[in-house]
Amino acid sequence: MGKPIITLTTDFGTKDGYVGAVKGVIKRVNPVAEVLDITHQIEPFDVLGAAFALRNFYSYFPQGSIHLVVVDPGVGSQRQPLLIRSEDFLFVGPDNGVFSFVYQNERITEIIVLSKGKYFLAELSSTFHARDIFAPVAAYLSLGVDAKEFGNTAKECLKLKIPEPKSLKKDVFGEIIHIDGFGNLVTNIGAELLQNKKVVRIVVGKRQVKRIARSYFDIPEKEVGALVGSSGFLEIAIDQGSAQEILKSKIGTIVRITFK
Amino acid sequence: MGKPIITLTTDFGTKDGYVGAVKGVIKRVNPVAEVLDITHQIEPFDVLGAAFALRNFYSYFPQGSIHLVVVDPGVGSQRQPLLIRSEDFLFVGPDNGVFSFVYQNERITEIIVLSKGKYFLAELSSTFHARDIFAPVAAYLSLGVDAKEFGNTAKECLKLKIPEPKSLKKDVFGEIIHIDGFGNLVTNIGAELLQNKKVVRIVVGKRQVKRIARSYFDIPEKEVGALVGSSGFLEIAIDQGSAQEILKSKIGTIVRITFK
Amino acid sequence: MGKPIITLTTDFGTKDGYVGAVKGVIKRVNPVAEVLDITHQIEPFDVLGAAFALRNFYSYFPQGSIHLVVVDPGVGSQRQPLLIRSEDFLFVGPDNGVFSFVYQNERITEIIVLSKGKYFLAELSSTFHARDIFAPVAAYLSLGVDAKEFGNTAKECLKLKIPEPKSLKKDVFGEIIHIDGFGNLVTNIGAELLQNKKVVRIVVGKRQVKRIARSYFDIPEKEVGALVGSSGFLEIAIDQGSAQEILKSKIGTIVRITFK
Repeated sequence: MGKPIITLTTDFGTKDGYVGAVKGVIKRVNPVAEVLDITHQIEPFDVLGAAFALRNFYSYFPQGSIHLVVVDPGVGSQRQPLLIRSEDFLFVGPDNGVFSFVYQNERITEIIVLSKGKYFLAELSSTFHARDIFAPVAAYLSLGVDAKEFGNTAKECLKLKIPEPKSLKKDVFGEIIHIDGFGNLVTNIGAELLQNKKVVRIVVGKRQVKRIARSYFDIPEKEVGALVGSSGFLEIAIDQGSAQEILKSKIGTIVRITFK
Repeated sequence: MGKPIITLTTDFGTKDGYVGAVKGVIKRVNPVAEVLDITHQIEPFDVLGAAFALRNFYSYFPQGSIHLVVVDPGVGSQRQPLLIRSEDFLFVGPDNGVFSFVYQNERITEIIVLSKGKYFLAELSSTFHARDIFAPVAAYLSLGVDAKEFGNTAKECLKLKIPEPKSLKKDVFGEIIHIDGFGNLVTNIGAELLQNKKVVRIVVGKRQVKRIARSYFDIPEKEVGALVGSSGFLEIAIDQGSAQEILKSKIGTIVRITFK
Repeated sequence: MGKPIITLTTDFGTKDGYVGAVKGVIKRVNPVAEVLDITHQIEPFDVLGAAFALRNFYSYFPQGSIHLVVVDPGVGSQRQPLLIRSEDFLFVGPDNGVFSFVYQNERITEIIVLSKGKYFLAELSSTFHARDIFAPVAAYLSLGVDAKEFGNTAKECLKLKIPEPKSLKKDVFGEIIHIDGFGNLVTNIGAELLQNKKVVRIVVGKRQVKRIARSYFDIPEKEVGALVGSSGFLEIAIDQGSAQEILKSKIGTIVRITFK
């Protein structure tokens, strides 16, 4: 049997001791918990970016894994600290939309507003709830404390308005929702929208993209291509380089696909 | 029971195999030690930055945790390699001031100059003591080897001159001692200096800051605010952005607080 | 006894959920495997950089450690996915040269082309083999599955042409093969070429370097020096700064050593 897993996804960066404090708090509450870094380089305050990163990894973990996700521009405000339980996983973080994709894709069995102070650090800051609230709660969860112990049930959690692609006759209009570390432009156009259809044109912003490729390698040199990426969405990419640098596209840039 | 914990705080960056070599050496000496990254992005050669990061996380860890801190511009010089034992923790690293806050805040029970070659790697480089000296020593410590086994006792360790705030009539003059990854400007003015006092003016460099806030969220849009941050010091901050980018302040910039 | 170790060396960066997916897959297959980050900041698509990082840490790990190295510009092409076994270690990654130094320095006992789909994720993408092939294979290896189970034996793996230094009368001509995170310029001139010889001149590109130092600290202020670094190669360096910033040297810049 493995030890209980707590994953960490934050925008804390990696130059301070912030991540260290979170890890220390967890290990002090549950010395046998296994803490795994996912990323601490979510763009500061980028709640959607955190939600998207979470979407792309959480389901690969063993059942029962606890995912701590703290991008928390509203720390110290009235936003609630949450614990979400789905059939397979536990999620801990602020109620600001970081769990939007989870809420959409998982069967949620419980949403709890964290309120029981005995599971928090004794001294509560108003600027660092990852250390003072979320870390100890995740650690007590990993010890087997039942979700209901941490507070009262809530009906729902905040869900970001994630833009949906629109179909119009022979066109699908989507947009760029994420730019990854390689500069690949990830759209909101899911693979299922492309199935059994012949694409005759792809336009990103004002630029036409040559064709749908099977892999990055498959995109001819000096061309911009499109492919279904590992997250199941259409991506705009170039081979061995950054499409973002070439196209200067941004989150929100429109991507139009025309079918035959 | 948890496994013995060794935390890593360095300026090695994350693009080379340096951190990997340190981890390998530790695991080879003690396969059951748990190695936890704190940061490898301390500004190169920034001993004070490492000392400050360490200050902000070490005490959250379980008793007996071993903190390896290697920002070591003097590697290969006469600076001594140290092991410091406090009532609750063990610290390993160069004698250059990285342990300044520990030395100030902890009850130190032992300072040992590392000299017993049998606890070092067989081949000793003059440029990478983290791998050749500090990692194996931390690992042997985690196996339970007594601190005294590693060398002779020293009376003290090098302590950086950390600037102290000065009180003058109705003013406190402090300065910026750290800029965190979000661009928050951390001063040396501790929360205790502000207790039960009414602040009427805050000046950072030449710029007046509007008011003391309770949280980042509490700072009105487009204003620069001040608040007591998670490390217990007054911070200059803006909501969802970098105060450093706005104010162009640097380490050492004077911060003046005027009380009623 | 320690748990089986799987180290991770990639160019995935640290802002996405890619590394998280890899870790999740490993933990799901083998919950007791210990996953250790080496770096995820290899320059994108820099196969030689990954090979060099690997060279500098792999041998410090305990016998039996599994090193996952994925810098994989050819993902989705015909390049083969490999498992390499040496007397002491296991290596998993693409057949594109990332194992060049391993191939040169280790006694290789087996090279296997990964082909058994039952050890891959059920759905195979053509853009993310780290998640779909290399992670589960590493995890099954850590469970004790025999190397031969994963596919057929290959005779050799791709080896990058790593430039060799050339000796000519009283000169050695080498070149810069790596620039580390501190800006130290690592050459391909091994320490053994300098033994028992008196160096009278060092020229990097068009710039003369004053002398061979013992450590970084030993290089006088404002001078550029040379020393045998921790990887066993001659490095061009300055004290507490970046030689790369001063000299503007690049990978491939010629370094000429003249002996007495």
